[in-house]
Amino acid sequence: MENPGRAGEPPGSAALTAQALAARVASGDTRAAARACRLVDEGWPGHAELLAALYSRGAATWTIGVTGSPGVGKSTLCSRLVQHFRAQGGRVAVVAVDPTSPFTGGAILGDRIRMQAHWEDPDVFVRSVATRGAHGGLSRTAADVARVLGAWGARVVLIETVGVGQDELDVMRVADTTLVIQAPGAGDDVQAAKAGLLECADVFAVNKADLPGADDVVDALRGMLVLGHITGSSAAPRAGHSAAAFAAAVTTDAAAAGAAWDVPVSACVATRDQGIDALVTQLEAHRSWLQSSDAGRARRRERLRQELAGRVREALSAAWLAAHPGDLDRAAEQVASGALDPYAATLLLLASAAPG
Amino acid sequence: MENPGRAGEPPGSAALTAQALAARVASGDTRAAARACRLVDEGWPGHAELLAALYSRGAATWTIGVTGSPGVGKSTLCSRLVQHFRAQGGRVAVVAVDPTSPFTGGAILGDRIRMQAHWEDPDVFVRSVATRGAHGGLSRTAADVARVLGAWGARVVLIETVGVGQDELDVMRVADTTLVIQAPGAGDDVQAAKAGLLECADVFAVNKADLPGADDVVDALRGMLVLGHITGSSAAPRAGHSAAAFAAAVTTDAAAAGAAWDVPVSACVATRDQGIDALVTQLEAHRSWLQSSDAGRARRRERLRQELAGRVREALSAAWLAAHPGDLDRAAEQVASGALDPYAATLLLLASAAPG
Repeated sequence: MENPGRAGEPPGSAALTAQALAARVASGDTRAAARACRLVDEGWPGHAELLAALYSRGAATWTIGVTGSPGVGKSTLCSRLVQHFRAQGGRVAVVAVDPTSPFTGGAILGDRIRMQAHWEDPDVFVRSVATRGAHGGLSRTAADVARVLGAWGARVVLIETVGVGQDELDVMRVADTTLVIQAPGAGDDVQAAKAGLLECADVFAVNKADLPGADDVVDALRGMLVLGHITGSSAAPRAGHSAAAFAAAVTTDAAAAGAAWDVPVSACVATRDQGIDALVTQLEAHRSWLQSSDAGRARRRERLRQELAGRVREALSAAWLAAHPGDLDRAAEQVASGALDPYAATLLLLASAAPG
Repeated sequence: MENPGRAGEPPGSAALTAQALAARVASGDTRAAARACRLVDEGWPGHAELLAALYSRGAATWTIGVTGSPGVGKSTLCSRLVQHFRAQGGRVAVVAVDPTSPFTGGAILGDRIRMQAHWEDPDVFVRSVATRGAHGGLSRTAADVARVLGAWGARVVLIETVGVGQDELDVMRVADTTLVIQAPGAGDDVQAAKAGLLECADVFAVNKADLPGADDVVDALRGMLVLGHITGSSAAPRAGHSAAAFAAAVTTDAAAAGAAWDVPVSACVATRDQGIDALVTQLEAHRSWLQSSDAGRARRRERLRQELAGRVREALSAAWLAAHPGDLDRAAEQVASGALDPYAATLLLLASAAPG
């Protein structure tokens, strides 16, 4: 496989048009796909035209979000999933969402240390994304890169996140199917982190099922899911103050849509390739549910609505910043000096018709 | 201590004015502070007036962001820090940023299971925040709640996050001083998650220093910090493709500001109260640097600029949504049906002067 970071010419070189690049990506050209991913990630001016041209090509691609707390064996399990999907035929891609450097904006981890097992397979494409803010949030960048890879020919795109924060939840929501990985041996802290992931799971995998305590994790997840179903359709009280509120907050995506997707929990041992076939079957069942049920279609519409809302928000913000050069700096200076509070400063910024 | 979730009357009850509530908070009334936190978190219409009235009261408060991967003993160490700061006198508050439920918007973990050791101390206030989008991002909510607690009389406000995602990094950036906790025994996955945290650390604590491997963690952090200092002031290449690029990406906040804050790394054992005094001394040294150096003041201005940018972005978005009811739903429907791609739909949404 080509190294995606080094393929092609730099943006802006002669003869690069969005349409020409789109045609090359759609023909299955890996170098072109790598270049398109990079241009999308970097906010190349033609990226919207490129993505629009590729959109219909990737519409049939199945995106699977994979997440879980650090230490649960996410990378190993992802690698196994790639192997199983590749064995079914067709191309597979992995979009790895890395913690972003606040200063360079670049991915820290990079493509290089991931998926070494698939490095030589020309039909497996691994790409890290980490940019945020160039032309939208991290979740929109991940969605865009997944679409490029769908147009390149990937039948399945795995979107893998490191971390358990709010932004990672957003990334998961751009996927068709979300797989949350758990493992035995986590402390209270990890339990807490897990809570945020419960609600976005379509399928749970309890990895490292050969370790002590794995059955307890499976049982606990099933118990939470049952509680979630019981209370899922009622108006949930504000969570965080009682066990009942906690249970009420555990509604699954499916329950929220008023439908009948029962979130399965399965045990596996990724290092030994145990339980992966069964997991793939469960993931595929969720995909069928999405395509064949009203609730599944409603979920897709809601996801698109969220995506459009995010794109509109970023565009409005970019337009404002372009129209008000220097205003933010001046306002920050006034707040720092004590002349204004941040709330009054915001109102003044919004009220200024022209840069002050 | 009053349970913050139950104090006071509901929003909108008679006689509640932002000014009256602000006066009660500023007098040190804990019930009023709890109520103010809740109103801020819930996006009460008067929250901006309330915060503006409280702003100058909390301006001297020192906010410390505390983060680290799950399992490093964050809660225990935070509890120790509360104990040490309380021993110095004055009030202390903790703002716990929880993973948010995407459906209820509420905190999953809640205040209840945190900080049990300080539950009966009336001068320690613990508050969870999880809301995002009500009137700004999670980081802005955390900043607002920290300001309420500063006005209530907290000399120190700890802002603790669960998780290692991008949103958590944003939360850390609203704090004056950021403490990143590490521990021995983490796998590759945790190493990766850690990378994103390196750049926001003002002080590192290696907890569980009685476990094997703790010295290695200390050495590795110091090595990374040295590399960061060497390359920190040059233009960093895009990270993720080589060890050199990785090193270049590891610039500290201090280095980015062109100043002389050397990020210290200290070992501690929170469960045994070992090394906490030294850690507190390091944190205080950072605060002095912030107040007494040009770089420290520049950092504060940049943080305020980021905050204002976020507030403006959210306000623009809210105004657009209010002016275009139903537009997003219709556009999502058209994308779902295949009549439009998301990129064309966004352009159409932005071009529509009036709802279509």
